Amino acid sequence: MNNLELRTRIAEAKRTQRLLERTSRSQRNQMVHAIAEHLKSSAPAIVKANTEDLLQAQHMQLATPLVKRLRYDERKIEESCEQLVQVASLEDPIGEVLERKLLDNELILERVSVPLGVIAMVFEARPDALVQIIALALKSGNAIVLKGGREALNTNRELIRVIGEALDSFPTGSSWIVHLESREDVAQILELDDMINLVIPRGSNSFVRYIMDHTKIPVLGHADGLCSIYIDAECDVDKAVSIAVDAKCQYPAVCNAVETILIHQDSASRVLPGLKQSLDAYQVIIHGDSAVSNIIACVAATDADWDCEYLGYEVALKVVSSLDEAIDHIETHGSKHTDAIVTENRDTAMSFLRRVDSANVFWNCSTRFSDGFRYGLGAEVGVSTQKIHARGPVGLAGLMTYKWIMAGNGHLVASYVGMDSKPFIHRKLSVDHSSSMIEGGQP
Amino acid sequence: MNNLELRTRIAEAKRTQRLLERTSRSQRNQMVHAIAEHLKSSAPAIVKANTEDLLQAQHMQLATPLVKRLRYDERKIEESCEQLVQVASLEDPIGEVLERKLLDNELILERVSVPLGVIAMVFEARPDALVQIIALALKSGNAIVLKGGREALNTNRELIRVIGEALDSFPTGSSWIVHLESREDVAQILELDDMINLVIPRGSNSFVRYIMDHTKIPVLGHADGLCSIYIDAECDVDKAVSIAVDAKCQYPAVCNAVETILIHQDSASRVLPGLKQSLDAYQVIIHGDSAVSNIIACVAATDADWDCEYLGYEVALKVVSSLDEAIDHIETHGSKHTDAIVTENRDTAMSFLRRVDSANVFWNCSTRFSDGFRYGLGAEVGVSTQKIHARGPVGLAGLMTYKWIMAGNGHLVASYVGMDSKPFIHRKLSVDHSSSMIEGGQP
Repeated sequence: MNNLELRTRIAEAKRTQRLLERTSRSQRNQMVHAIAEHLKSSAPAIVKANTEDLLQAQHMQLATPLVKRLRYDERKIEESCEQLVQVASLEDPIGEVLERKLLDNELILERVSVPLGVIAMVFEARPDALVQIIALALKSGNAIVLKGGREALNTNRELIRVIGEALDSFPTGSSWIVHLESREDVAQILELDDMINLVIPRGSNSFVRYIMDHTKIPVLGHADGLCSIYIDAECDVDKAVSIAVDAKCQYPAVCNAVETILIHQDSASRVLPGLKQSLDAYQVIIHGDSAVSNIIACVAATDADWDCEYLGYEVALKVVSSLDEAIDHIETHGSKHTDAIVTENRDTAMSFLRRVDSANVFWNCSTRFSDGFRYGLGAEVGVSTQKIHARGPVGLAGLMTYKWIMAGNGHLVASYVGMDSKPFIHRKLSVDHSSSMIEGGQP
Repeated sequence: MNNLELRTRIAEAKRTQRLLERTSRSQRNQMVHAIAEHLKSSAPAIVKANTEDLLQAQHMQLATPLVKRLRYDERKIEESCEQLVQVASLEDPIGEVLERKLLDNELILERVSVPLGVIAMVFEARPDALVQIIALALKSGNAIVLKGGREALNTNRELIRVIGEALDSFPTGSSWIVHLESREDVAQILELDDMINLVIPRGSNSFVRYIMDHTKIPVLGHADGLCSIYIDAECDVDKAVSIAVDAKCQYPAVCNAVETILIHQDSASRVLPGLKQSLDAYQVIIHGDSAVSNIIACVAATDADWDCEYLGYEVALKVVSSLDEAIDHIETHGSKHTDAIVTENRDTAMSFLRRVDSANVFWNCSTRFSDGFRYGLGAEVGVSTQKIHARGPVGLAGLMTYKWIMAGNGHLVASYVGMDSKPFIHRKLSVDHSSSMIEGGQP
């Protein structure tokens, strides 16, 4: 698309988004269900398009894990449909009253959740991701500009066609979805900070960093996931070993897997032999400092190991002399994603939880728990290691902002200023079990 | 300061901030009170420094309103001290439990408010602003990098010295405050997106825009305040006129003053004569479209008037044929700051409140109410017209982020995955009247 076409399409998406935002909850849920039903009935056509992509992938000699993610067969379509039903069942994120205050008699202030507007998502070659992203945008009343991996282009095109058909009979249609097919289109949308409210990049660290460095649009994403576990002097050895192994080996290719394990010198000789035995079962390569190598056989760690996100069956081990040294190490080398302590001493644990400045800080459990589904957010749109807007696993709330609405009866500021000014009441009102005044008329 | 000095000072501020963050609420409040007491006892020295600035200002023939804001006499010092006492009395923003969930037996997740870290604030030539900003940073446990107007340099230097003295006897001291004195320093800190978490610029629109365009650090600020009032066909004429006059004339130099008034054609002949009479009392220049000029005497509006933030005794008036036209006008020309409707029809009001995509949307009250103090936020650090992080008037909450903390008892992700996996409980727990597990030991 040329720049004018792109701007026109996104302006139209934004216009439709304003209608989508005001569409009732039940209608938005009906639209999600309609997509699910249409996906099911169109499965043969989708599988056919996917087969073309798979043949192309074979031709290009794509790596097996990539091909596995690219495959979108009847079973995976079924799974997507189940996910859609789940998204429809989530609480409605629009119109939630976040605060309500009586400022004065007949002067009521509400802070109410509203969609961000237009969200752009650039993601990997997984057709199921496209379906889920569209469902989340629909549920949250946002327009969505999306670009999937080029390996999945045929599948994605077919999915966009099928979803468009499913939405045809609804008043808002599907023009709130903008599907991009080329990298050049992505480069162009990164310039559109006047039209797009948030970019969510998914993929490799270098890709996410590229996006962050090339746009003025706010970006929701994690740059790295260098997670650490600190095993304290007063640890339960079995707990320490099983947590470390789970965090490293349960799924090592992800951002919340552990990369560095710090062990207090007073527990090193108790912990390390068992830890090595368990890691050996997964053929994990251990990079240890000299204190570690005095106790177990390992590869000598270099300085680079403390900053390395292995994303595989490798781990860096270091012996530390204190909680302070562990925290200093995490501050210096960590990526503020997820860090955990294993200890039976509650005070030490609380100190760690308070002092470590990461998005997720855990006590006596695996770093792998930092995840939207495990947190019960219903769906995960990404994990943020930034401090602005959203931090850690982000659910639908990350696609929302809020506005302040106030209802008065001719109230003037002049009455509250200067001599004989009226005082404000500023009484907090309950926000439980009541919808916003602007949602009063909605089904 | 050269770049290395600046980085060193900010790194030290960040280091101290980590201590400040963990300082108890009562100690942080004591520090605020200590500043107030020391300001009072140092009033003669502060006034002396301020007199130098005022002489300089006279010499430079500074405009009267600027000189007025620059003046910092015994009475204004007294006011600053009262504000400090107020800040100390605000609810503690650190360690608030925002969410709490039981994920499984003995596996508890909390989302807890924590300081952003290092905040930079660049502000106008008002010495009282410097005092308030430092108090807000202290209350919220953030390090602060600040640069005030150069006209107030002598006063600010003296204030920084006095505040430093007041904090000397406390363990954290005052090195979490970094005072910048030159524009070159500001240009340098805008590059430090690896050290500074948020920039809050205060001043003219062009200044705020300059900051936004020259940094990768997230910026909290409003670019413009082009506020509108729509007077509906079914309005109460007295209410409409008094709200419009309050919004325009109560203090026209501010971002929440009204600049454009849209009047429904069916109420124009009833509203306009009285409105003109009331605006004439303040010598407001009226720029009206042809439909307006058919009813009252006015200056013919040009296209530029619909996009003009007068910030003075001038207003643009336009007759519209419908609510839709009013909303379209606001979407096209407004700045998404504050917009209001005057109507006796509740349905029309709700439609306006729902559909207008601004930070503050009001019914039957003055646009001038969009303000942190009037909203009962205790203090205002700025007004945001952005959608990310904070929107509208921003109180202490705008200086905070959150982290997720989890406490388990050896919990592994492997238990919740695959065949025979355990289900999560995901039960919301109450967050009322209880502090976070990490705050348990605090006074």
